[in-house]
Amino acid sequence: MAEASRISEARRDAVFARWVIFSPARSRRPTDLKSHGPANPSPGPDDGAPKPSCPFCLGRESECAPEIFRVPAPDESLPWRIRVIENLFPALRREAAPPAPEDEEPVGAGECAVRGFGFHDVVIETPHHEVRLWDLDAEGVRDVLLAYARRVQQLAEHPAVKYVQVFKNQGASAGASMAHSHSQMLGTPFVPPSVTSRLNCMKEVFERSGKCSLCAVVSKDILVSETHNFSAFVPFAASYPFEIWIVPRQHSSYFHETDQDKVLDLAGLLKSMLQKLCKQLNDPPFNYMIHSAPFGLSSSCLPYTHWFLQIVPQLSVIGGFEMGSGCHINPVFPEDAAKILREIDSS
Amino acid sequence: MAEASRISEARRDAVFARWVIFSPARSRRPTDLKSHGPANPSPGPDDGAPKPSCPFCLGRESECAPEIFRVPAPDESLPWRIRVIENLFPALRREAAPPAPEDEEPVGAGECAVRGFGFHDVVIETPHHEVRLWDLDAEGVRDVLLAYARRVQQLAEHPAVKYVQVFKNQGASAGASMAHSHSQMLGTPFVPPSVTSRLNCMKEVFERSGKCSLCAVVSKDILVSETHNFSAFVPFAASYPFEIWIVPRQHSSYFHETDQDKVLDLAGLLKSMLQKLCKQLNDPPFNYMIHSAPFGLSSSCLPYTHWFLQIVPQLSVIGGFEMGSGCHINPVFPEDAAKILREIDSS
Ligand SMILES: Nc1ncnc2c1ncn2[C@@H]1O[C@H](COP(=O)(O)OP(=O)(O)O[C@H]2O[C@H](CO)[C@@H](O)[C@H](O)[C@H]2O)[C@@H](O)[C@H]1O
Ligand SMILES: Nc1ncnc2c1ncn2[C@@H]1O[C@H](COP(=O)(O)OP(=O)(O)O[C@H]2O[C@H](CO)[C@@H](O)[C@H](O)[C@H]2O)[C@@H](O)[C@H]1O
Repeated sequence: MAEASRISEARRDAVFARWVIFSPARSRRPTDLKSHGPANPSPGPDDGAPKPSCPFCLGRESECAPEIFRVPAPDESLPWRIRVIENLFPALRREAAPPAPEDEEPVGAGECAVRGFGFHDVVIETPHHEVRLWDLDAEGVRDVLLAYARRVQQLAEHPAVKYVQVFKNQGASAGASMAHSHSQMLGTPFVPPSVTSRLNCMKEVFERSGKCSLCAVVSKDILVSETHNFSAFVPFAASYPFEIWIVPRQHSSYFHETDQDKVLDLAGLLKSMLQKLCKQLNDPPFNYMIHSAPFGLSSSCLPYTHWFLQIVPQLSVIGGFEMGSGCHINPVFPEDAAKILREIDSS
Repeated sequence: MAEASRISEARRDAVFARWVIFSPARSRRPTDLKSHGPANPSPGPDDGAPKPSCPFCLGRESECAPEIFRVPAPDESLPWRIRVIENLFPALRREAAPPAPEDEEPVGAGECAVRGFGFHDVVIETPHHEVRLWDLDAEGVRDVLLAYARRVQQLAEHPAVKYVQVFKNQGASAGASMAHSHSQMLGTPFVPPSVTSRLNCMKEVFERSGKCSLCAVVSKDILVSETHNFSAFVPFAASYPFEIWIVPRQHSSYFHETDQDKVLDLAGLLKSMLQKLCKQLNDPPFNYMIHSAPFGLSSSCLPYTHWFLQIVPQLSVIGGFEMGSGCHINPVFPEDAAKILREIDSS
């Protein structure tokens, strides 16, 4: 591949203001320690049978934390197609009293602590244990995305919820503890750190250039695929090899306000990107995250907040350099990753 | 343990302004996926023999990238005790032309790219393959820390180097590709993102309270150990279970300016903390990072920059929530971790 001969380059992106070092030569370093490749064998075809120990399977609903809502199967052949439930081991608790602003206990200089109030939900994407998200048809994926949007909308109405992080962990190396296809959502009583820094960066770019960082035209070199409403590309300063961003082409701050028909378009693109990653990288563990705007943003902030979905295959372990500096080392140039992904057939 | 009964809490620290969710109940969630515990079997006792394939072993010096300097063994029984060498697969290259300020190619709105100039060095901490850093005596650990300081000092004199990240990866799950005990150093032509956000946060705290975030007295609850010159504690808003910070008790911005006798004190404390983690967590993979000030800081910034060493045992995999939000979920309250660590004998 052409990439191995390229020299290193450092790039800073316009969304998080993060520096990333691109260094193709790094991929040739030797190791005498066990490899950390995908430890997640691809599940076999679905035989339809529930897994004896999995509470997310059809028929095991009583072993789960309470249901918030369910999405029926279109033909009513099954009692449900998607379930949104409470997380049985929530990081934040809906029963806790929401923190009042004056509650932010200042502990030392600049430190603070609040009660662990919040909402931690699980979205069970299919009743079948062996079905993966990208095995669903585009309508099935759309319904999962619509379930996210519906639940985010509900949480947005709670005055103490400042942000909802929607995310998916697929495979043990991506953090998943449950194999059955699912995603999660955490509604927090504070604006999380990466959201604050993303907004600060996008604001600065907007003030300097008059442009939204994500409305700027995407160069053909990093584009993977495009539909009427969305672009999928490898970001110019991707922190991870084969990272993909799916971005609405029309400026839009909140994921959960996306029209139903656009969500179908997004679903098709998401399915196709997951299929491409699965083919190219041999069913890798991955995460995806929806980056939206915090609730109750003043209207002056809307011109520079633009939601997107980030997909990150987990191909290597992060080391001390990344943990300490916040700067990632990526052995694959975005242009090279995009070219490879463009050329893979996703069907 | 008392911790399991505690309710969740969210805390924000005064150094990085990062929110962390403490949720002891999370540690009880089940899994049907393979565990990701330490995959790094503890090496056996040193038989003194070089490992046939390890270029960092005594006698294999010619298989390494060029040496920068070596530290002789005190009794001259061996040709060296520590070697600082170039990384054979550097992320940034010393041969590249350093970027001039006007070189920062603006690519799109707010994006930029620079040539991959920089210094990437490896510190071989011992000539013996099976010896771990904390097997060395305090003088041995001190000499490793002094080797870091000496190399940082050299890089600080290069006008294009803005920061040096010193870090150690121990064990495959902490990212290490080489088993032989070593650390690394990366001198970058930019100030890395976490350094910028750390400085911004500490500046804000200073402007608001007149205090340096790290000079404020450490509460006894989170203290693990203290020497004349350094405190070791579990930070109030630790992102990781059993994370430890070693902080100079006297305000000081730059690690590499620490006096030799203080470095011996630091070495003893570092050795003892690594021994405690090793005992309590069964030889876990870990990283440590030195957080210092960027070079050439204006004197008005010195009052709020305070260097420290962060040790992070790698006990679990990060998921999509942390990747997306920058907010970590930690199942162990800092007070509980500190109590456990205080009570372990480190000898
Ligand atoms: N019967 C039941 N009813 C309802 N819910 C049930 C349940 N049984 C299990 N659950 C919940 O289902 C969720 C499954 O989630 P994932 O597999 O995506 O990862 P998990 O949250 O465990 O941790 C990963 O993601 C988080 C967040 O990113 C990281 O903190 C962590 O390190 C990483 O391993 C768990 O949160 C669990 O609490
Ligand atoms: N003969 C030789 N002479 C000189 N140097 C040699 C050499 N043989 C190997 N090396 C170098 O030695 C270093 C060993 O470093 P580590 O084991 O700490 O992790 P590594 O840098 O591979 O990656 C981990 O740390 C980095 C930085 O945090 C992460 O990007 C990455 O994902 C993670 O796996 C490598 O950087 C390698 O290039």
